[in-house]
Parts: sequence; C-alpha cells; structure tokens
Amino acid sequence: MDFSSKLLENAVAEVSQLPGIGKRTALRLVLHLLKQPKERTTYLTAAIQALRDDVVFCKKCHNISDSEVCEICANPKRDRSVVCVVEDLRDVMAIENTGQFQGTYHVLGGKISPMEGIGPNDLNIRSLVQKVDEGEIQELIFALSASMEGDTTNFYIYRQLQGKSVKLATIARGISVGDELEYADEVTLGRSIVNRIPFEDSLKTS
Amino acid sequence: MDFSSKLLENAVAEVSQLPGIGKRTALRLVLHLLKQPKERTTYLTAAIQALRDDVVFCKKCHNISDSEVCEICANPKRDRSVVCVVEDLRDVMAIENTGQFQGTYHVLGGKISPMEGIGPNDLNIRSLVQKVDEGEIQELIFALSASMEGDTTNFYIYRQLQGKSVKLATIARGISVGDELEYADEVTLGRSIVNRIPFEDSLKTS
Repeated sequence: MDFSSKLLENAVAEVSQLPGIGKRTALRLVLHLLKQPKERTTYLTAAIQALRDDVVFCKKCHNISDSEVCEICANPKRDRSVVCVVEDLRDVMAIENTGQFQGTYHVLGGKISPMEGIGPNDLNIRSLVQKVDEGEIQELIFALSASMEGDTTNFYIYRQLQGKSVKLATIARGISVGDELEYADEVTLGRSIVNRIPFEDSLKTS
Repeated sequence: MDFSSKLLENAVAEVSQLPGIGKRTALRLVLHLLKQPKERTTYLTAAIQALRDDVVFCKKCHNISDSEVCEICANPKRDRSVVCVVEDLRDVMAIENTGQFQGTYHVLGGKISPMEGIGPNDLNIRSLVQKVDEGEIQELIFALSASMEGDTTNFYIYRQLQGKSVKLATIARGISVGDELEYADEVTLGRSIVNRIPFEDSLKTS
C-alpha cells in the first residue's frame, strides 16, 4: 500500500502489528480516529500507555491487579488450600463467572510452546512449585486449554511436583451442556465415556 | 465483564470504542501488549497520537498529506481539469492502484447520512463548488459508493452545480471482470444492461 502521508503510514504499521489486525483494518481504525474529536485519541493512547506503564501483578497469584495482592487472594473467604492453575486473566474471569469455584488461582502467563519460543522459565511455574513447598496447598486443579501446549504444560508441572504431597486434578472434558451427541467431536465424546462419573455426582451441580 | 484492575478496565473500554472491536477483542489486544516489551506500546501510542495531532490535509483536494499540497495535486503531469470526487483516502488509494486515472481528486471526507448525523456542511462540498466556480475544472467524476448515502451525496452536489459549465460523470456500475452472470445481483446486472457501452469502447481498456 502506498500512503500519501508518512504519519499515516507509521500509525497503520504500528496498529497492524496487533494480533488479528491487518493493514486494511488498521487503516480503517486510524481513519476512524481522524474523524473523531482529538480527545478520543488522547483518551485511547493514555489508557493503553497507563496500563502498560503502571500494571501491577498480584504477588501471590500473578493475576493483573491494582494492588500488590489481588482481591481474590486478599479475600479471607476464599479457600487457599485449593488452587486453580490457569493460563491468563481471561480464564480467571471465565471461572469466576461460573460462581462454582471458591478456591484461589495461579496465573501462569501462558503455555509452554516451543514454536513460539515460550519455555518453562518464561512462565510463573517456579513460584507455583515454591507455593506447594510452603505446604498450604492441598489440591491443584489444572485448567489449561486442551491443546498440545496445554497438555505439555500440565505434564511439565506434574513432573516438577512429583513426590510432593499435593493432590493434582484437571477440569473435566466432556460434552457441553445442551450439546447434541451426534455433533460432538470423537475425541471429546471418547474422553467423556472413559472419564464417566457416578450418576449421583451429576445431580449435585445445578 | 468484571475486571481485576481499573487500569485494565479503562484500556479495554477505550479500545472497544473502535469500530468493529468488541470487549473480548479489546481485552485480547490489550493482553497482547502486556506480553510484549514496553517499547512496543510506546511506539504504538506515539504513532497514533502523532498522526492525530499533526495530520495535514491537502488544501486543494483535502486528502491526508505530509505537506500543504499533496503529491498528486503538486504533480504537474496530473490533469487539473478532470477531478474525481471520492469519499476518503482509501478510495484515492484504490483508484491510484489502477493506474488508469491521470486527473486529480477531491476528497469529501464522508457521505451525506442523516442516520449518522452527517449533513452537507460536514463534508468538503463548499470548496468543491468554489473550485468549479474558479473555472479550471471541465469534468467531475463521481466515484462514491453505490449506496443510498452515496446517491444522495451525488444528487446534492449535482443540484449545487446546476447551471455551471462543468461536465458531470459517474463511474460505471456493472458486472465485475471475471464474474459469472448467473451469480450477479439483479440491480447490478440491470444497470449494466441499461448502461451498455458500444463494443468498440470495451476494446480500449486492457
């Protein structure tokens, strides 16, 4: 694309580096900002910059937070002996939305992915092992995505924790509530049969 | 969505005001920036802010430019007597890409759209009428989109220019090169029959 202005070209180049945003979309977004009052752009850039500069991660669970210890970790009603291991903030939000989990979290900040150059040391795994060593945790629940990277990460942590007295669990994989069996994929359906649960247990959840 | 941090909530709120970007996408983009080095965010916000603060519009054609008069208007080889009326910069780029137009442009900055509160006075129409009055322009080519807003804008300008000695044209609507007739929509196919062109004329364009 040939742009009539260097400033425009720079802005489009930067915006199109965001994931899932190509040059055309970037141009559309930038032209939209030009049609809006100047304040809109100032608010936008200030909000992004403030987040990047002043972001705080909870020193206990590594979730994004406004204070040193996040609201969940600081809440005395949450069960500190059950810890759910998740990839990032979005998973915390998704699980919190269910209202079914009263424990605390540990945010890894990603999954082990050699393809993207992310190794175990880039994630918050060491601090998890340390938390387990301190002895307060009785059960860890792995809630990573059911992909190769997720499974690798689960397995890596599992190896790190071998011999330690902590119960390890993973969230159940199965047919979504409301789904038709005939449209379910084979792997999920297969796992849901292998990992079947006693019928009485299924009556417990509303 | 309940966010664990006010800074994050602000950033997501601002980003999700961009067209076509919802809260989920905004969160994904913002979390991506948090995983990148700080400089990336600084480059991004600086480029957007610089564009918004220092953008220059060509005083002749109103296109986005780095100088008072844009490259196209300043080019002595371009034909100033033929002016193509377009909505915005993207249309200029699209037409320039064809390499078939040697005239100059006039960028309206939008289309008349009562639904969005855009009236004739919000567009660069007065300066177009003024340019016509100055007498240099012999032909105006309307190249707005074939929507109700585009047609309204064309008609409004047409009424403003009635009685003035300028030839008015509109770009041809018809079946795209390479398209199958059976899949063409009726309106386009209908227009392409009504506005048929002499066969010899169709041989001229490569």
